[in-house]
Amino acid sequence: MSLDLEQILLTFQQGERSLKETKEALSTMPVPAGQALLDLGRELKTGTPEIIYGQHKSLAQLLAITKALTEANRLAIITRVSPQSAKEICNAFTNSHYDDVANCVTVGQLPKVKSLGVELLCAGTSDYPVAKETQVVLNALGVECTPIMDVGVACIQRVLAKQEELAVARVVIVIAGMEGALPSVVAGLTKAPVIAVPTSVGYGVSQQGFVALASMLSSCSPGIATVNIDNGVGAAMLAYRMVTNDR
Amino acid sequence: MSLDLEQILLTFQQGERSLKETKEALSTMPVPAGQALLDLGRELKTGTPEIIYGQHKSLAQLLAITKALTEANRLAIITRVSPQSAKEICNAFTNSHYDDVANCVTVGQLPKVKSLGVELLCAGTSDYPVAKETQVVLNALGVECTPIMDVGVACIQRVLAKQEELAVARVVIVIAGMEGALPSVVAGLTKAPVIAVPTSVGYGVSQQGFVALASMLSSCSPGIATVNIDNGVGAAMLAYRMVTNDR
Amino acid sequence: MSLDLEQILLTFQQGERSLKETKEALSTMPVPAGQALLDLGRELKTGTPEIIYGQHKSLAQLLAITKALTEANRLAIITRVSPQSAKEICNAFTNSHYDDVANCVTVGQLPKVKSLGVELLCAGTSDYPVAKETQVVLNALGVECTPIMDVGVACIQRVLAKQEELAVARVVIVIAGMEGALPSVVAGLTKAPVIAVPTSVGYGVSQQGFVALASMLSSCSPGIATVNIDNGVGAAMLAYRMVTNDR
Amino acid sequence: MSLDLEQILLTFQQGERSLKETKEALSTMPVPAGQALLDLGRELKTGTPEIIYGQHKSLAQLLAITKALTEANRLAIITRVSPQSAKEICNAFTNSHYDDVANCVTVGQLPKVKSLGVELLCAGTSDYPVAKETQVVLNALGVECTPIMDVGVACIQRVLAKQEELAVARVVIVIAGMEGALPSVVAGLTKAPVIAVPTSVGYGVSQQGFVALASMLSSCSPGIATVNIDNGVGAAMLAYRMVTNDR
Amino acid sequence: MSLDLEQILLTFQQGERSLKETKEALSTMPVPAGQALLDLGRELKTGTPEIIYGQHKSLAQLLAITKALTEANRLAIITRVSPQSAKEICNAFTNSHYDDVANCVTVGQLPKVKSLGVELLCAGTSDYPVAKETQVVLNALGVECTPIMDVGVACIQRVLAKQEELAVARVVIVIAGMEGALPSVVAGLTKAPVIAVPTSVGYGVSQQGFVALASMLSSCSPGIATVNIDNGVGAAMLAYRMVTNDR
Amino acid sequence: MSLDLEQILLTFQQGERSLKETKEALSTMPVPAGQALLDLGRELKTGTPEIIYGQHKSLAQLLAITKALTEANRLAIITRVSPQSAKEICNAFTNSHYDDVANCVTVGQLPKVKSLGVELLCAGTSDYPVAKETQVVLNALGVECTPIMDVGVACIQRVLAKQEELAVARVVIVIAGMEGALPSVVAGLTKAPVIAVPTSVGYGVSQQGFVALASMLSSCSPGIATVNIDNGVGAAMLAYRMVTNDR
Amino acid sequence: MSLDLEQILLTFQQGERSLKETKEALSTMPVPAGQALLDLGRELKTGTPEIIYGQHKSLAQLLAITKALTEANRLAIITRVSPQSAKEICNAFTNSHYDDVANCVTVGQLPKVKSLGVELLCAGTSDYPVAKETQVVLNALGVECTPIMDVGVACIQRVLAKQEELAVARVVIVIAGMEGALPSVVAGLTKAPVIAVPTSVGYGVSQQGFVALASMLSSCSPGIATVNIDNGVGAAMLAYRMVTNDR
Amino acid sequence: MSLDLEQILLTFQQGERSLKETKEALSTMPVPAGQALLDLGRELKTGTPEIIYGQHKSLAQLLAITKALTEANRLAIITRVSPQSAKEICNAFTNSHYDDVANCVTVGQLPKVKSLGVELLCAGTSDYPVAKETQVVLNALGVECTPIMDVGVACIQRVLAKQEELAVARVVIVIAGMEGALPSVVAGLTKAPVIAVPTSVGYGVSQQGFVALASMLSSCSPGIATVNIDNGVGAAMLAYRMVTNDR
Repeated sequence: MSLDLEQILLTFQQGERSLKETKEALSTMPVPAGQALLDLGRELKTGTPEIIYGQHKSLAQLLAITKALTEANRLAIITRVSPQSAKEICNAFTNSHYDDVANCVTVGQLPKVKSLGVELLCAGTSDYPVAKETQVVLNALGVECTPIMDVGVACIQRVLAKQEELAVARVVIVIAGMEGALPSVVAGLTKAPVIAVPTSVGYGVSQQGFVALASMLSSCSPGIATVNIDNGVGAAMLAYRMVTNDR
Repeated sequence: MSLDLEQILLTFQQGERSLKETKEALSTMPVPAGQALLDLGRELKTGTPEIIYGQHKSLAQLLAITKALTEANRLAIITRVSPQSAKEICNAFTNSHYDDVANCVTVGQLPKVKSLGVELLCAGTSDYPVAKETQVVLNALGVECTPIMDVGVACIQRVLAKQEELAVARVVIVIAGMEGALPSVVAGLTKAPVIAVPTSVGYGVSQQGFVALASMLSSCSPGIATVNIDNGVGAAMLAYRMVTNDR
Repeated sequence: MSLDLEQILLTFQQGERSLKETKEALSTMPVPAGQALLDLGRELKTGTPEIIYGQHKSLAQLLAITKALTEANRLAIITRVSPQSAKEICNAFTNSHYDDVANCVTVGQLPKVKSLGVELLCAGTSDYPVAKETQVVLNALGVECTPIMDVGVACIQRVLAKQEELAVARVVIVIAGMEGALPSVVAGLTKAPVIAVPTSVGYGVSQQGFVALASMLSSCSPGIATVNIDNGVGAAMLAYRMVTNDR
Repeated sequence: MSLDLEQILLTFQQGERSLKETKEALSTMPVPAGQALLDLGRELKTGTPEIIYGQHKSLAQLLAITKALTEANRLAIITRVSPQSAKEICNAFTNSHYDDVANCVTVGQLPKVKSLGVELLCAGTSDYPVAKETQVVLNALGVECTPIMDVGVACIQRVLAKQEELAVARVVIVIAGMEGALPSVVAGLTKAPVIAVPTSVGYGVSQQGFVALASMLSSCSPGIATVNIDNGVGAAMLAYRMVTNDR
Repeated sequence: MSLDLEQILLTFQQGERSLKETKEALSTMPVPAGQALLDLGRELKTGTPEIIYGQHKSLAQLLAITKALTEANRLAIITRVSPQSAKEICNAFTNSHYDDVANCVTVGQLPKVKSLGVELLCAGTSDYPVAKETQVVLNALGVECTPIMDVGVACIQRVLAKQEELAVARVVIVIAGMEGALPSVVAGLTKAPVIAVPTSVGYGVSQQGFVALASMLSSCSPGIATVNIDNGVGAAMLAYRMVTNDR
Repeated sequence: MSLDLEQILLTFQQGERSLKETKEALSTMPVPAGQALLDLGRELKTGTPEIIYGQHKSLAQLLAITKALTEANRLAIITRVSPQSAKEICNAFTNSHYDDVANCVTVGQLPKVKSLGVELLCAGTSDYPVAKETQVVLNALGVECTPIMDVGVACIQRVLAKQEELAVARVVIVIAGMEGALPSVVAGLTKAPVIAVPTSVGYGVSQQGFVALASMLSSCSPGIATVNIDNGVGAAMLAYRMVTNDR
Repeated sequence: MSLDLEQILLTFQQGERSLKETKEALSTMPVPAGQALLDLGRELKTGTPEIIYGQHKSLAQLLAITKALTEANRLAIITRVSPQSAKEICNAFTNSHYDDVANCVTVGQLPKVKSLGVELLCAGTSDYPVAKETQVVLNALGVECTPIMDVGVACIQRVLAKQEELAVARVVIVIAGMEGALPSVVAGLTKAPVIAVPTSVGYGVSQQGFVALASMLSSCSPGIATVNIDNGVGAAMLAYRMVTNDR
Repeated sequence: MSLDLEQILLTFQQGERSLKETKEALSTMPVPAGQALLDLGRELKTGTPEIIYGQHKSLAQLLAITKALTEANRLAIITRVSPQSAKEICNAFTNSHYDDVANCVTVGQLPKVKSLGVELLCAGTSDYPVAKETQVVLNALGVECTPIMDVGVACIQRVLAKQEELAVARVVIVIAGMEGALPSVVAGLTKAPVIAVPTSVGYGVSQQGFVALASMLSSCSPGIATVNIDNGVGAAMLAYRMVTNDR
């Protein structure tokens, strides 16, 4: 199969490609953006826009991708972006915003958020950047979400003080580092699915978040969905699917 | 706080315990079952019954727990049970059923299943026991679910052949061992949240399921919820929360 | 230095060894027991008898060691002993006792236990053998200790129901497998030092107890002492030192 | 449960909350400190103040927390603080002190230390910063403690030269990196519980302290409590509980 | 055996060394290049020139090696070279070229490339540097190769769009980070051997490329050859052997 | 897309499916074999038949798969089969053969082997079963291959004695356990691509083959393709692709 | 080079092979022994006979190898042999001896041992089998060696009691499991090189001997040579080289 | 035991300490050097001076230690020293020398080296710093040693070219990174004990030297002594003991 628009249409016209084939080819036709190829058809298939993972990309690559997205009238959401690249992107595009805690840049008109029952608990102050990344992405997808801070298991009464919020949530995101015990406690206090996000906060055996991750995966409480370490984006996207895909 | 029913009621009568306190104490009062204490109040708080993890428990412990559950008119669902223990439990209780692929025993009246949009894909024939455990638990919770078999990534056309089912699913469970690549592909073909279950099928570097697990956690596709290795119960409970907690 | 009693005394008599040297030599003189050499002087130096770790020792070795201990009028405490070896040892010695849950044999007169403020919490039914090993060793050392069962974090109210016991404990031993989150919660509810014992209960990422161990070591709660996986003996010995060494 | 003081009191007045409930609510009411919420009630429950872990917190966060603590007339103890942040905190608050070896800042009136039998052995010169952190925290809690330096196992006579101090200690803290063998030797020379602190001193296989940690956990000597790598705070808090919780 | 040319020839002349021995000695005689000894005979034995791995070598060492190679009329290919060293080498030698994406320097006349059926797929934009290293080395060996970009498994249609290229390839190189699932899919779509190159692109559990590596090794698709993480050189050399060693 | 043959043809007839679509659907139509679905179309796409991995499959599953294959006139190659299952399969099908060193069963007419330049070196006697598995699979694919035994690096002269064979090979398979050093030496003695197969032979640090695997992946010699531990099938399939895909 | 004796001599006679070449070819000519090829020339090159590692070899293979060795008048030393195989070998050959603690069989006339200054310390009773393997191999090589038992670091006085033996040793072998601390202490008490042998004795974090191994490698004492876990053979061979290669 | 010289002598005079005790106390009396305590008596016990490991020590600590050593007329050997500290130490003391490849400083009169049969092979140019560290320490101990460079296994003929040197060596040190295969080959070519030093040269799976280390430990060749990664000092000290402790 060729990737070229003209050829797709010609082969359709000449009967070598059925209507269904043509639609499929069009929906997967990548949009060139510098060295990258954007997948603007993904939104049709998966219901979510493509989030740009900024960590291993050069400024030039990020500028090209952002330009292609804005020209296609899409919202650009770039995560794990360096302050320098963030500044350059914001200078280059109007309607851009940089969150320096979440390390995210958005370019384009942000949607108005709606309350869809997403609750977000954050175990410690040090886990805040991951909570912020989750919030920025959810907000950019139109979902209301505000972190509840400092509800770690070392002071269990604080968690219990949130029982009412947990009882009415549709999905609960729990962000924790170190021993990652919070989701186990929370899942015992709610009927909602719990998305557990381990963070790389810790030192010694818990450095880099592997202990928190393993803790969450081996929880004795049922109903926990675990994502990668520090993966605020993944938690946001998973929560978004849960609250929007309710046909 | 005392755990004794009589004392709970007396302290309530004497005004030392408020009504609210009394209700909470009652809802968390454990039911003795041999050495174990059952948490029959869990269902009120979390919406799901307690599943009995049979692997490290003796036959005597399992019989005591099952007896306590049946006396409380609850369905007993016991997973990872040895064939010997399964046989003894089935002999001891009427209305019991043993699935020797899933290694699960249920004791009590099973509910009628309803179609709630749970799709289950199983990558290989060797992953079938985990798929079966997932199915048994979901069915016991009243949710319809039938595994679609042999849709591994080595033959990608088989996965694509399921695009229509994926498009209308409310949640998709994907079970895979070895390199665990299937959820990445599936999440790109659906709007539903994807629950990824790594299995311990494999050898050499992939023995015990750690590669499949890590693969799923580090997927480049968004919207994936990962559970522990071979954790069919966890996948079922998570899916159950997703499709029932939609206030 | 020679290990022979006669030579020790002769060199003392001949002035080649001072009184202090002689006492030291005598206190460290090992007692032959088959291939092994017992360290009966250890009790003088460390306040605790030598516990025999049975796992890698043959029946012949265990019988020889037990014989030497009983002849020296010491209590023999043998852990991780196979049922077969346990039976043979109990047949060979009067006043012997085998606990088949703890996998421990004691030979000799057990002391009367005293209440010294040691509280023992056990997260799940599957963790019971480790709790029992801890109890058997503490009891053999004359310390009262009874496990409080099934207080896992998935049902946090059960833990909270034990707050009064925790408030007056002198030391709290917490035994938990899987994600090992219980000590973090408990340490926030007591002023006592908490001894955390990870167990090898779990599967997938938590198999063999490494996740529970790492969780306990990286707890965000202060005041937690961690011991090796399934190390009930270590917890007992540590608790014993804490409650007896209060000059 | 609401977190608001006024509401707590009103519900008490209106009889919706018992006296006991009201006291509990008050004791767990968090004090806002910028983004963080302080747990001033922790001291009541656990006997120890909250130590601020400085590593992942911004200067703004640390200043806010310190301000809240000093306004509540509490001693602020901040560990793993950067020299820059330390300097700013010391400039902002009177009665502050920075230890640049321990990387700790204290703000507030330090208590007079008492001798409570805590002995601290440090294996090598390179382990000194962890020993100093332990000492700073213990001193801030009012406990006397001075490290005994350079008593590694490569020169066993130095360890033996400390036998008298070990014989009378109530608790012995042992700090060691590389192969972490010192606690095994020390526990054989004392009746006191031994707190083993592995350090990240080493290279090759022992880099990051995992070998020292595992060595300590698998010691053949009984009576050893292990804490996380470089966790001087944890050792201090554990020792503090041991020597003060002797009802 | 002596390494000295003169001695080799003399011993041959004097009959102490046979003709065969002499040829072997000559073919393995190292060429001094500063501290290093070049193996110019390797090309005769293995069909490929020696690639200089620049990462742990000083500029002085690299300059000496390059000088020796150019004096022997060989092409110098230096990988993993720092920008500073690259600049100095390019200044010192004519006919040199630095690729700042691949981090490679070549010194000497590059051959004209031929099409030998090597196809190169690159999963993501972030994997581009490894793809570029592969391309630079293959081109320097005279083999045509151009990366096909952004064909990750999250959008499987893009992979399928390349089926025609895959069908006619003689060898397919697949470069992917994160979960490394692409080779499994590709090997199911071609008859050619697939060279899988894991990259260190990722974070959390997939940081440093170990998950991608393990995924590729445990693929359920047959016909996959795996090389070290980020090892573009290794992939190029392996592909070169495959397409040139077809006697 | 439906999987049913009749429906495929009907939709073609009714013009809802193009000719191309129909061919693709037919080529990927799975053949039911008990619980499994066979992919008989794979041979068309990848040039190699499906090898049945027997380790996690029940006898019933293996018999069903073998029956489906023989009915489709395909050769069944089953690896990692237990002696019991092997015996039952051989009893059930004529023209079957069991190799009890390789743990492989073949059912069907084996092809006549041709010499295609595949050389196989086996480091130690203990590695022989993996070598045999490789040989059985290659022979079943029609490729001649006989292991050269006992050429480990501890006696380097034995390796050198094989230089002539290595010089004319088209591909060299090297099987080694323990430190896995043989491929590094071999790759320096041939122009052929080297397929390195680590084995699980070893103990202590090299148990389970991870050291041999890592050694091979990090070889300083270029031109090495590594497969999973004990993966004789993978080596055979990779070699097969190399020597047959030479358009 | 051909492996055949006749051809070697013929090519020598015909002048195609020099005298030196011929001697080398003869010294490396393998002796067939069933599937294996023995390297009888190794003794000439390395000073030590080939030890047969029995763990992964079948009885048939072991019998063939033993037969070839005895026919060549060599002593056969077979380690890690199963009791069954040991019995069969002893039945088949006269002058054979089986040590059921060391799991070693020797066939042939054992040499008279000489005292060469090899001291062997064994930390615990459970480590005895490894000590015995070391002793059996050293004795078979003609070197006197008797284990000193039960000198673990938990009772440091026992180690100190051996200072005189350590002072005059030429090499000290130290065998220890669990935390593996003994070599660090011993190396500080002797001028001799210390060979450290970790054993797989332990449980939890120290299971399988990795902690003891890492401890020994990261010792703060200089002069320690580490071998693989449970590698009594390796320790014996290394000690043998140290005490015999003193030109 | 007191550490104070005066007290030692007084107790001797007063008969409370025997002559033997007094000598022992004196030989272990530490010399204060800033925060550190030097062990000048170690040389008497172990035959080797104390090497100062500079990596985790401050400049002030290093200067204090060097001053104490020079005042005691000892040679100071400081390894892993930063260029800045090296410069300051050299400025502060006469007769000092800094090797910037080995990262070592020596202060004091270096001994004249003697040839004691220590051969040193270095696999690659990148391993040179570790070889240099080994050489500097051996030279400072009076032992001649010059690295033979670039003898990696990828060009096995280079290793074979050194057979004559290997045949007459008393001990062979082999330094290698990446797959660490060189010691296996070398141990098959010499009767001398082989000291294997893994280096952290490599990337991907071999980063940080763990693969080289494990390779060396699991070598199929007997007679190999392994030390920690990059541990040139350890290799030097071990070789020194081997060649000097030959009573």
